[in-house]
Amino acid sequence: MTAGGDSARPAVGGPAASTLRLRSLGIDTLQEPMLFMRSDCSVCRSVGFTVLSRVRVGFAARHVVATVAMVDGNLLADGEAALSETALRALGAHPGDRIAVSHAPEVGSLSDLRAKVFGHRLDDDAMRRIIGDVVAGNYSPLHLAAFVTACAGERLDEAETLGLARAMIGTGERIVWPQPRVMDKHCVGGLPGNRTTLIVVPIVAAAGLTIPKTSSRAITSPAGTADTMETLAPVALTTAKMRRVVEREGGCIVWGGAVALSPADDVLIRVERPLDLDGEGQLVASVLSKKVAAGATHVLIDMPVGPTVKVRSAAAAQRLRAEMRAVGRALGLAVDVAITDGRQPVGRGIGPALEARDVLAVLQQAPDAPADLRERALQLAGAVLEMGGKAPPGGGRDVAASLLRGGRALAKFEAICAAQGGMRIPPTAAFSRPYLAARAGRVTAIDNRRLARIAKLAGAPQAPAAGVQFLAPLDTVVMAGQPLFVVHAEGPGELAYAFDYLMAQPDVVAIAEG
Amino acid sequence: MTAGGDSARPAVGGPAASTLRLRSLGIDTLQEPMLFMRSDCSVCRSVGFTVLSRVRVGFAARHVVATVAMVDGNLLADGEAALSETALRALGAHPGDRIAVSHAPEVGSLSDLRAKVFGHRLDDDAMRRIIGDVVAGNYSPLHLAAFVTACAGERLDEAETLGLARAMIGTGERIVWPQPRVMDKHCVGGLPGNRTTLIVVPIVAAAGLTIPKTSSRAITSPAGTADTMETLAPVALTTAKMRRVVEREGGCIVWGGAVALSPADDVLIRVERPLDLDGEGQLVASVLSKKVAAGATHVLIDMPVGPTVKVRSAAAAQRLRAEMRAVGRALGLAVDVAITDGRQPVGRGIGPALEARDVLAVLQQAPDAPADLRERALQLAGAVLEMGGKAPPGGGRDVAASLLRGGRALAKFEAICAAQGGMRIPPTAAFSRPYLAARAGRVTAIDNRRLARIAKLAGAPQAPAAGVQFLAPLDTVVMAGQPLFVVHAEGPGELAYAFDYLMAQPDVVAIAEG
Repeated sequence: MTAGGDSARPAVGGPAASTLRLRSLGIDTLQEPMLFMRSDCSVCRSVGFTVLSRVRVGFAARHVVATVAMVDGNLLADGEAALSETALRALGAHPGDRIAVSHAPEVGSLSDLRAKVFGHRLDDDAMRRIIGDVVAGNYSPLHLAAFVTACAGERLDEAETLGLARAMIGTGERIVWPQPRVMDKHCVGGLPGNRTTLIVVPIVAAAGLTIPKTSSRAITSPAGTADTMETLAPVALTTAKMRRVVEREGGCIVWGGAVALSPADDVLIRVERPLDLDGEGQLVASVLSKKVAAGATHVLIDMPVGPTVKVRSAAAAQRLRAEMRAVGRALGLAVDVAITDGRQPVGRGIGPALEARDVLAVLQQAPDAPADLRERALQLAGAVLEMGGKAPPGGGRDVAASLLRGGRALAKFEAICAAQGGMRIPPTAAFSRPYLAARAGRVTAIDNRRLARIAKLAGAPQAPAAGVQFLAPLDTVVMAGQPLFVVHAEGPGELAYAFDYLMAQPDVVAIAEG
Repeated sequence: MTAGGDSARPAVGGPAASTLRLRSLGIDTLQEPMLFMRSDCSVCRSVGFTVLSRVRVGFAARHVVATVAMVDGNLLADGEAALSETALRALGAHPGDRIAVSHAPEVGSLSDLRAKVFGHRLDDDAMRRIIGDVVAGNYSPLHLAAFVTACAGERLDEAETLGLARAMIGTGERIVWPQPRVMDKHCVGGLPGNRTTLIVVPIVAAAGLTIPKTSSRAITSPAGTADTMETLAPVALTTAKMRRVVEREGGCIVWGGAVALSPADDVLIRVERPLDLDGEGQLVASVLSKKVAAGATHVLIDMPVGPTVKVRSAAAAQRLRAEMRAVGRALGLAVDVAITDGRQPVGRGIGPALEARDVLAVLQQAPDAPADLRERALQLAGAVLEMGGKAPPGGGRDVAASLLRGGRALAKFEAICAAQGGMRIPPTAAFSRPYLAARAGRVTAIDNRRLARIAKLAGAPQAPAAGVQFLAPLDTVVMAGQPLFVVHAEGPGELAYAFDYLMAQPDVVAIAEG
């Protein structure tokens, strides 16, 4: 390496971290950390920061990488800088502390990202470098978007998917359970109301198997399993608390995000959500890495297939099933995939509290409980029981049905809720409005994506009582003026907003005459 | 379409725009418009805004689409909201005005973007929809990143590239010139110091051809043609002013951004720059759409080829040349591509003012003017003269050389500068430091990308006097301790920062012993 002039001697006013006094402006930009600096700040000038620069902000042993925004006028005094609220908390710093600000270090894996964008494969080392930078917070939202896009569709082959899963596992926590057989379940999603987990877990735990279920909050849907469960019991448990619940009851339904199992997934999801983009490789890596991190040995994947859910065709389902099994095997997981019907919502509720009511109705064996949700849950629970050796091949559904009928599943569910911190009553929305059929006829098609969107516009999942109560499954014969579904919201504004969208959509529920 | 209940009647407190009183907090986030709202703002609650929501902010006839950030505490009073500075200016609004805030409308082309990400082709209508949304500001930075990534590498075929170019032309201004033959030139870039335009334009104009050159500022490089020219004369001319310069002198060198020729390109570049991503199709569409918009009929493309510039191989160059010609022909442009040497910087200067000095030295025929810059400029000017019928095939270089030798090119350049607003002297940097050879030997390889990065870290192009003065071309025999290049900066901090980076890079200039 060639040496330079007198560069061994540090320059005056060099780029080593400069310190500024931290202020809080009370500005919340959620996960995108921002550093607000005075445009005439002497640190900026000497080090060459400008708006949109990426900077490293350090305090004690922690640091975050933030984007610079500049402030004129009186918001900050000379020598002060402010962080967005989430960044402040991540840093563990408080107003008045001195923070160290320097240029963000070169992000080493960006050349790997470029290579992938330009069509090259990513080997295991490259995946590790990228995921390492992702978890460290070194990727700007734009870089994350580029990575998600470059991997979307079918752009990751099986080896890359395995590499991605391994890299995700390597950067998160792993839970190890004493039991030799640890059951788990996951639904690929896109099907509103498909909350079978809350019924499957108590059935499987009641049968004596261990099923420590960690679930997500909604990503692009109106309710995630964790959101729905949260209307019934606390879900943000620490790993220690989660272990105690499982020790006591054999099962749990908690929020995976609180257990930090897959920090890479958490970061990537922040960009996948607004982009509404995903890919087969990313899906497989995301699901299986979380299951390995959660300590599972046996995983049942529920994969609904239909024109308006995530997996659109039987061919795509077969491809995903094969990939899930192969990558699972390489990771030490036994994976079974149930290909199910994705043409219409499951149950009646779409939205956390509305779905929770469906679940309770099934567990309580209420006469008007949604039969489709009940049947799907029994089929899936039966598959888990068979994988776990608690039922003979083909006999799982019957064993599950008897556990449900005998009230043991309900008792187990109530016990799990109590162990997680106390069972609660799901809230009810203050406002609702029915959407009526314009003419008589038979229901021939249902647009799940649009129904989900309506539920989200109504406020789900942030407003847990909001959503859609669906009343017209396929083949229902309806009269003119009959409610097809009811929109629930916590305020009149959201209700109107959902209906504004609905009025502009033809055939969310298609009705054929005669 | 099925009708809904009583949804024909607007709901109370509906989602029609709510108004808020505008404040300025003096916060500059550059092009990403942000709307700062109080977290307890009644508008937010009734309409369902939250952090990261995309909202439409209207004032009089204009609107912008912005991302929401929430503010606690005292920055805003009840009923107030603030916009980032650039958004405020774009809206033409002032503190105290009432702005209308509503949810951003659905972005129609996002389904087209998804389709492209998932591997489908984009037809002309889809391209138009996407580019329409891009120009309207409806795409968030993440969506722009996804689009750029989905088109990167070779992911646009020739028909898509043509569709993209047409969509970009359709959303920008077009200049029409009275002359039947309008010459233009473009360099594909990545080669530091390659500022031939400032010599080619005066030669071509002195020969009696019309050459209204619009150029870019730096995208990912330490200097764009517009940055370099700006150290010598004003470049941000209106279209009317530009026409007067061309009428008077036959040519000009102005900043394309001030003439709004390609608003789509301007938006996409904001994301291409931090991502450092591009693609063949995007490149072709970007270059040719700007040339069509600028009113050119004949375009010469300078395409340097080398391992450390944008076009890495002869094969890639041939592919690009063929695509430029074919797409150009479809757009009514005669396109010629000169494939040139991209293995080392051209001239000595890398950075606006340093390059400007090289250009003046050539035009003034100074004895120490960089011979390589001179020769390249003569070759390219010669090709333009031949395309324009002012020299016989193969004779262009000699005609160009005689115009330079006779002082007519210099006189024309000075006249163009005067017509653009007045010739000025390029600034000189206050600080500089040489980088010395560690050992004796012959220069065998030069990393253009790293040299460009060093120039940028030193402050180019924002600091016009900053950059690198390169002194050791390929095959130079150097002694130990001899300066290979000199880093110039306007402050000691930037100088130190550039050297910090340099010290960590082996073989920016590779020297072989013996």
